[in-house]
Amino acid sequence: MVAAIIVIGDELLLGQVIDTNSAFIAQRLSELGIKVVRKWTIADTLEEINQALKEASQLSELVFLTGGLGPTKDDITKKAISDFFKVPLQFSEKNYEHLHQFLTYRKIPIRDSHKVQCYIPSNAELLENKLGTAMGMWIEHNNKIFISMPGVPDEMKYILLNGALPRIQKLWKGHFVSSKTFHTCGVGETEIAERLEPVLLEFMDRITIAYLPSIAQVRFRITTVGQDQNEMNELLDQCSIVIRKEFGQLIFGEDKTLLEIELGKLLKENKLTIGTVESCTGGTIASKLSSVPGCSDYYKGSIISYATEIKETLLGIPDELIQEHNVVSSQVAEAMVRNSVGLLKSDLIISSTGIAGPDGGTEKIPLGTVFISCGNSKRILTRKLTLGKNRDRNIEAASVLALNLAREWVLGIEI
Amino acid sequence: MVAAIIVIGDELLLGQVIDTNSAFIAQRLSELGIKVVRKWTIADTLEEINQALKEASQLSELVFLTGGLGPTKDDITKKAISDFFKVPLQFSEKNYEHLHQFLTYRKIPIRDSHKVQCYIPSNAELLENKLGTAMGMWIEHNNKIFISMPGVPDEMKYILLNGALPRIQKLWKGHFVSSKTFHTCGVGETEIAERLEPVLLEFMDRITIAYLPSIAQVRFRITTVGQDQNEMNELLDQCSIVIRKEFGQLIFGEDKTLLEIELGKLLKENKLTIGTVESCTGGTIASKLSSVPGCSDYYKGSIISYATEIKETLLGIPDELIQEHNVVSSQVAEAMVRNSVGLLKSDLIISSTGIAGPDGGTEKIPLGTVFISCGNSKRILTRKLTLGKNRDRNIEAASVLALNLAREWVLGIEI
Repeated sequence: MVAAIIVIGDELLLGQVIDTNSAFIAQRLSELGIKVVRKWTIADTLEEINQALKEASQLSELVFLTGGLGPTKDDITKKAISDFFKVPLQFSEKNYEHLHQFLTYRKIPIRDSHKVQCYIPSNAELLENKLGTAMGMWIEHNNKIFISMPGVPDEMKYILLNGALPRIQKLWKGHFVSSKTFHTCGVGETEIAERLEPVLLEFMDRITIAYLPSIAQVRFRITTVGQDQNEMNELLDQCSIVIRKEFGQLIFGEDKTLLEIELGKLLKENKLTIGTVESCTGGTIASKLSSVPGCSDYYKGSIISYATEIKETLLGIPDELIQEHNVVSSQVAEAMVRNSVGLLKSDLIISSTGIAGPDGGTEKIPLGTVFISCGNSKRILTRKLTLGKNRDRNIEAASVLALNLAREWVLGIEI
Repeated sequence: MVAAIIVIGDELLLGQVIDTNSAFIAQRLSELGIKVVRKWTIADTLEEINQALKEASQLSELVFLTGGLGPTKDDITKKAISDFFKVPLQFSEKNYEHLHQFLTYRKIPIRDSHKVQCYIPSNAELLENKLGTAMGMWIEHNNKIFISMPGVPDEMKYILLNGALPRIQKLWKGHFVSSKTFHTCGVGETEIAERLEPVLLEFMDRITIAYLPSIAQVRFRITTVGQDQNEMNELLDQCSIVIRKEFGQLIFGEDKTLLEIELGKLLKENKLTIGTVESCTGGTIASKLSSVPGCSDYYKGSIISYATEIKETLLGIPDELIQEHNVVSSQVAEAMVRNSVGLLKSDLIISSTGIAGPDGGTEKIPLGTVFISCGNSKRILTRKLTLGKNRDRNIEAASVLALNLAREWVLGIEI
C-alpha cells in the first residue's frame, strides 16, 4: 500500500504557515511500512482540491488531506470533497453534538459560523477530535481510503493517532520498517558519524543511518526493512549493543524521548529533587524541566536572577565576588548553586550565567561565553561553554547542555 | 519569474524531520511577488536530485535546493549538482578558510570529514554562512539561477537573507504582493472573522484575508496584488484604519512581531521593570520575556515556585491562605504578585498558578484551571482561565495570556 498527502491552504503556498503535518503523517506511515509517494501543497480552491484528489487517487490507495476544515470562509475542503465524490453535504447530528460539548466545556457560545462545520459529505464517517471543533472524516470509495483532517497540528495528530491509524493498521498487512533512534548531547554530528560508521561496518548492507542534529544534540537513527520482524529486531538489537559499547553514557536515551524526560527519570530513581538558578538562560531550563508531566515529584522551583542586583539581594552573592571574577565566571556560577540549595529546598541546583547575545561581550569574555554549573555544596560540576553569536541558539544550547550536566552529576560520571 | 523548491533528504520523506525551509523560502519569495510553482521532497540520491533538477529547471527560472550539504555521508548534493551541470568538483580555498575560521572560533579541531565540504562544483559561487560550516552555492546556467543551501534552518535562513535574496532582488522587477499582518491575543478565530469580514466588505474585491491561529493568539493577514505599489499601500492603509477602529487595543502588533517584543517596548516606554512568579507555567513566561534582545532594560528576574513549599518559604505566602482558598486560586495568584515585588525589585509582577495537566484537578477546580495575575501592591489585574486538558498547550496559553494581561495593565485598559 502506498499513500499520498495533500496539504491544503494558500497560507502554505505563501509560506505563512509551516507544514508539520505531512512529516508527522509520513513518519507514522513509514513505521507501518507504508510509503508516501508524493506530497502536494495546494491552494484553498474547489478546482485545486478536486484536481489533487484526482491525481492522488490515481497514484495511491490511501489519500490524506490536511487543512481547510475550520470555521472561517477560506475553508472549503468539505465542499470540494462532496463535489469530487458527487455526494451532497448533510447536517450531521453527531458533529453538532461534538461541537456543543466542546464549546460548552470552554464556556463559549455556539455561533452560526460554528454550525457550518456540521455539514459533511454524505459518504463520510466522522473521526473524533477531542482538541478542537473540526472532526476528521473517513471515506471509502472504490477500494481506496480518503482521510480528511483539520490543519491544526495537535488536532490532526489526535485524529490520526486515535481514529485513522488504528483503522488503517487493521486493513494493512505488508512488509515492515523497523528503526531505533539514539539521542546524544554535547558532541557534533561529524564526531558521532566518525565513531559510529566504523563500528557498524558489518551491518551496513542491512541498515541505513540517518543523522538528525538539533541545537547541542545529535540523534541518529538506524533503520532496516524486511518481512521478518523477529529477524529485524534481532539485527537492531545487535547494532544497539555495538553502539552502546562505543558511546556509553553519551547516549542519554532511545526512540521517542527528551533529555528532560530522561533526567527526570534519573532524579526520580535516585530520589533527588532539583531546582535551577538561571541568568542568561532566563527560565528556559526551568520550562524544559516543568514541561514533563509528573515533574512535581522532583522539580522544586527556580530563581531567574536576570538582573545582577537580584543575584546580590535574593541569592546573596557578594558584590566583591562579582567584581573580582565578573558576573560571567565559574565562581559566580558555583556561588549561584551553593547559595540556592537552601532557598529552593533542592538536593541539586543547575545554574547558568553568560552572554547570550546578540550584543555584549569583551575580549576576555566574548559573546557566547556561558558558564553552567550543577550540584550542591558538597559536589559541583562546572563547564565553560564557547557558543556562537545567535541569542536563541545560545540560550537553547546552554539549557540543553546544562540539563546534560545534571545528568552527568546524578550518574556520577563526566562524559 | 517563478520559482521551484527541491527539499532533499530521506529523513524528510520518512517524516523524521519537518521541513520548515520551503515555507520560509516561499514566504520571502512571495513578498517579492515571485510565485513558487511546485515543491518536491526527494530522497538523498544522485538520481533523484538529478531528476528533480531537470524537472525544476524546465518549470522555473529560479531553483532552490535545501539539504544535503553537511559533513556526513548521506549528503551528496554537491556531487549531484556537478553531475547535472557536467562540471568537476574543485577544492575551494575560500570554503576552507571559512571552515577554518568557524571551527577555530569554537575551538573544534578540523577533521578530514570536515574538509570534504570544501569540494564544490566548479561553476558555483559561494554564499556566506556565518552559522555553520556548510556554505551556500549560487549557480547561473542558461539564464536560470540555482541556489543550494544546507538544510539546518538557521543556516539556510542566514544564506537566503544575506546572500541569495539581495542578489535576486537586483535581478527581478515584477509585479508586487503587499500584505499586512495584525496580531491579536485572547479571542478565537471565529469571533475575529465575524467582526473582521463585515467591516472589510467594501475592500473584498481587492484584498484576500488569511487567518493564522496559534495557541491563544490569532494573526490575520490582508494581502493585495498589483503593479502600483503606492496604490497598494494606500489600500492597505485604508484597511488598517477600519481594522484598528474595530479591534482597538485587541491588536497588539503588526507584521513581524511577538507579544513579548511588544510588551517589552511598552515597558521601556513607560520606564517600568517586570518580574514573574510562576507556578504552573514553570518558567515559560520568563523564557519568553528573556528571549527578547535587550530585555535587561526592563526584565529583572523570576521565581518559579513550582512546589507549594517554595511558595511558603521563599514567597512567604501563609499556609492558611493556601488552605483556605486552595493553591490554585485568585487569592494565591495575587499574593504571589504582592509578595514578590520587593524580592524581584520590579515595578510589576506577573504570576500564574493552575493545573496544567495532563492529570489532576477536582470537580471544583478542574484540570485546565489557571489563575494569572499582574500588577503590584497598588493595582492588580487577575483572570481565571478555563483551558483544555493538554499540558503543553495549557502552559503556552497561560503564558501568552499572562503576557497580554501585563500589556493591559501597562496600558491601563481591560480588553
